[in-house]
This record gives sequence, structure tokens and C-alpha cells, in this order.
Amino acid sequence: MLAPMDTRQNAAARPPESHLDLLERPLFAHFATVARDGSPRVNPMWFLWDSDAGVLKLTHTNQRHNYRYLQANPKVALSIVDPNDGYRYLQLRGEVEQIAPDPTGAFYNTLQQRYRGRTTEVKDRDVRVVFTIRPTGFKARG
Amino acid sequence: MLAPMDTRQNAAARPPESHLDLLERPLFAHFATVARDGSPRVNPMWFLWDSDAGVLKLTHTNQRHNYRYLQANPKVALSIVDPNDGYRYLQLRGEVEQIAPDPTGAFYNTLQQRYRGRTTEVKDRDVRVVFTIRPTGFKARG
Repeated sequence: MLAPMDTRQNAAARPPESHLDLLERPLFAHFATVARDGSPRVNPMWFLWDSDAGVLKLTHTNQRHNYRYLQANPKVALSIVDPNDGYRYLQLRGEVEQIAPDPTGAFYNTLQQRYRGRTTEVKDRDVRVVFTIRPTGFKARG
Repeated sequence: MLAPMDTRQNAAARPPESHLDLLERPLFAHFATVARDGSPRVNPMWFLWDSDAGVLKLTHTNQRHNYRYLQANPKVALSIVDPNDGYRYLQLRGEVEQIAPDPTGAFYNTLQQRYRGRTTEVKDRDVRVVFTIRPTGFKARG
């Protein structure tokens, strides 16, 4: 008897060791989402790779389009290119598994420190949220 | 009497003058598409902006996933960041309006010249295609 086919789309995936640096370095990730009409969107974003949990986190606000799109369709993809070699890149596919408030701006500060080496007061902390993305697959090239 | 609402999604759009250089320079565009299951994909791609026609062209093959996805859903988006200023970027939304064969590899050679400054024989010219994307909207930042 055949085992039942695993139809889950959210089995966790781990990034390939060869391209882990693209998650660890403070690069921009091009974040793709799907709008309600089925058309894609893509924007450069700051991110943090949480190696222990195996998840990627983004800062966002609950005022932007993507926040609404992701309620309807939590599936996302990110593309990260090595700025020293444009032919070396990593694609992550996954799902937003949690959207949490960031009421003190603490997570935003973490990303400021990572990308700008300093922090400032997070004036829009009342609307700041953290997206936690669980990877379902990776594609690496170069 | 009110004019009927224009519900077309494919009204042409022109890029903002302020960010035209991001289309003219040989940068990578992060190309987002939607797979059959409604999840997005995003990959770095070469591209050519055809200013006269107001369309963006990509080289692809008819052997890759995106070729099949785009038959079902021709809606796409591209994100291009200024490598000299990561906070300056352009998002293009649009639809694939034509997929044409590239039997001599001539268009692939055009992109090789643009990105690598030289051309080589296009060994997979039998499966090479040109995607022509008609923009429906732009978003510019920075």
C-alpha cells in the first residue's frame, strides 16, 4: 500500500549551507506577495534570518497594502542576490506564519542596527508589526 | 450620466522620469510571477527597456516553470534597486502581452551585449523565447 501523499505546503525547509551568507549579511531581500486580484507585487525589504528558529522576519506596518494582501494569501517569496556576484542568489519560498505587533519598536531597532549600525526612536511603533515567515523551499544558484 | 468605469487592468503606464535610469542601466530586475497554486516566485533577471514601445523585454526559455505559470496568469511585477543607493528603487507591475520565439538567439545576444559586453553562440536558441511585458503601473521610491 502506498503512503498517503503529503500535500502540506508548509513543511519546513532549511537553507543550503553554500548560500547561508546571503541570509546572514545585511542585504536587501526582494519580497514578493500576491494581491487580491491575483497579481504579484515585489519590494526590496530589510530582513533578519533567525537561524535557531529557522524563520525569516520582516518589519512592516499594518497600514500598507501587503498587510492586507497577506491576510488573504500568506504565501510569499524572497530573492536575495550577492552584490559581489549578481549571478549568485538565493530564492526563499514560504508562508507568513505569524504577524505580531512591535509596540516598542524593538524589532525595528534590531533591523536599524543591522542595516544602519545605529538606532533611532521608532515614531510609527503603534502600527509596526513583525512578519514571521516559515520557509517551505529554497532555490540557490551560482 | 456617469461614464462607465474603466475596469481594464492593462492600461499602459509610463515610468517616472526620475527613475528612468534604473530601466536604462544594466541592472538585475527581481521578476515576480504567480505559480498555479497561487504562491509567488521571484528571481533575478536580465531585462531590456524598450523606450519607444514602452515595454520591458526578458529572455527566457520555454522549459522553465515560469513559462508555464505565465500561460495561466500573465500578471507580473519587477523590482529594481539602485546599487549605489539601496533605498532608491522602482517597482513595475504589468502583464506579459507576448511570448515570441528567439530562434536565432538574437535577443539573447542583445542582452549578453548589454550585461557582459560580448556575445557568444546561443546553444539553447531552439527553446529561447522573448517575454514582452506591458506595464500597468509603476511605484518609485528614494
